[in-house]
Amino acid sequence: MAPTLAVSTVIFALRPDERSSAAVGTRPQLWLPLVVRLRDPFDGRWALPGGPLREDEGLADAASRTLLETTGLRPNYLEQLYAFGDADRPGAEHGRVVSVVYWAMIGAEEAHLATTGQNVRWLAADRLPDLAFDHNRIVDYALWRLRTKVEYSRIAHAFLGETFTLRELREVHEVVLGKPVDPANFRRQVEASGAVVPTGQVRTGGRHRPAQLYRYDTAIEPVDLGPLAPEPQKSPTSTEETP
Amino acid sequence: MAPTLAVSTVIFALRPDERSSAAVGTRPQLWLPLVVRLRDPFDGRWALPGGPLREDEGLADAASRTLLETTGLRPNYLEQLYAFGDADRPGAEHGRVVSVVYWAMIGAEEAHLATTGQNVRWLAADRLPDLAFDHNRIVDYALWRLRTKVEYSRIAHAFLGETFTLRELREVHEVVLGKPVDPANFRRQVEASGAVVPTGQVRTGGRHRPAQLYRYDTAIEPVDLGPLAPEPQKSPTSTEETP
Repeated sequence: MAPTLAVSTVIFALRPDERSSAAVGTRPQLWLPLVVRLRDPFDGRWALPGGPLREDEGLADAASRTLLETTGLRPNYLEQLYAFGDADRPGAEHGRVVSVVYWAMIGAEEAHLATTGQNVRWLAADRLPDLAFDHNRIVDYALWRLRTKVEYSRIAHAFLGETFTLRELREVHEVVLGKPVDPANFRRQVEASGAVVPTGQVRTGGRHRPAQLYRYDTAIEPVDLGPLAPEPQKSPTSTEETP
Repeated sequence: MAPTLAVSTVIFALRPDERSSAAVGTRPQLWLPLVVRLRDPFDGRWALPGGPLREDEGLADAASRTLLETTGLRPNYLEQLYAFGDADRPGAEHGRVVSVVYWAMIGAEEAHLATTGQNVRWLAADRLPDLAFDHNRIVDYALWRLRTKVEYSRIAHAFLGETFTLRELREVHEVVLGKPVDPANFRRQVEASGAVVPTGQVRTGGRHRPAQLYRYDTAIEPVDLGPLAPEPQKSPTSTEETP
């Protein structure tokens, strides 16, 4: 029997840690939505959202649809992660599946709007249980890509609003990297990279003193696909164009 | 009807330009083997080697098999490139295909041993005709990845023998990048990167004066797959381990 083709999506969002108090300033954590399986193999285990590729949809379209069905949202960032197709993948005895996996990021302003689809639960990325199939391995790889990429690309923006303070940007880096980042070094590196530009506006209020607002330089593409990059479009549903 | 899953491989080798004289020192060019199609769609056009994924083989195994059947060789370097699965890919009217594409590199010492399978021809990467399906786009993307990667990873090694002179390494960069590279700058960058180490041996003979031989630092993996990296193996057929 020919292998079945499925598309799954690792969806990352920064959300406050639900176990801590809701005090202002609670440091957010990386979360991802998972779907409980209701049949064998791996009945009752959590799995990445996704399913078979439909006849009339492209791979990235299938990943976007999965995200919409799981969270009610459109991604700020969507990129193909990897195709997993070892002949001995866990669960293969029930029929072999090749999974093309995408990873997506949801912005801070959208994350609290996320609906939770049926049988869906958000779990903290660093406290996952044993997932179905090889999905722990896939999440590990997606986390590694996120951590690698946050250091050299403007991907952290996908977790932020259109404008942000350097403190907010640094906190995204700290959450993603899982370690403190020195504020002065961070400011120096970000300013030297030229990746962010001051908006001339200032954020006031909250616990902190007024801070400069920045935005990313939109001339830099977050996903560098070279000759595969889509033509510039104005459609808000063009996931790979949205900064 | 569910989309069919195929695995194709872009195979790069550095070979002398067959149009120029065979004089010693002829600068090599990037070549890739293509297979002529003998049925619709795209009957008579050249296409990337590959075919449907077999029931019992993994994606990377299928890419290795394709390479072996097309050239009689095992790759020095094999990496997953991208999964192409737009619903409107050229040829979809004859049945939709999702292609997981790998790219491979063949070393200088193997390239001249390559056999040429039936209906196979080697074509120069910069002078390709109109290929079947979207294969020109796929080759363009693979070339872009090769050019991007040669500047920051030790991938050029896959085109060289175990040891090489800095001139040989620079010539690989020049062929891949398609432009001259300043020898003094190149030497400075390579030495600063720490990616190559002197062997203490010298190459004599040929047109040039004796030159230091170098090898790559094998502690650096050519394909950085993070948590997906295979366990170290001693099998010579382990394609992702071969430096």
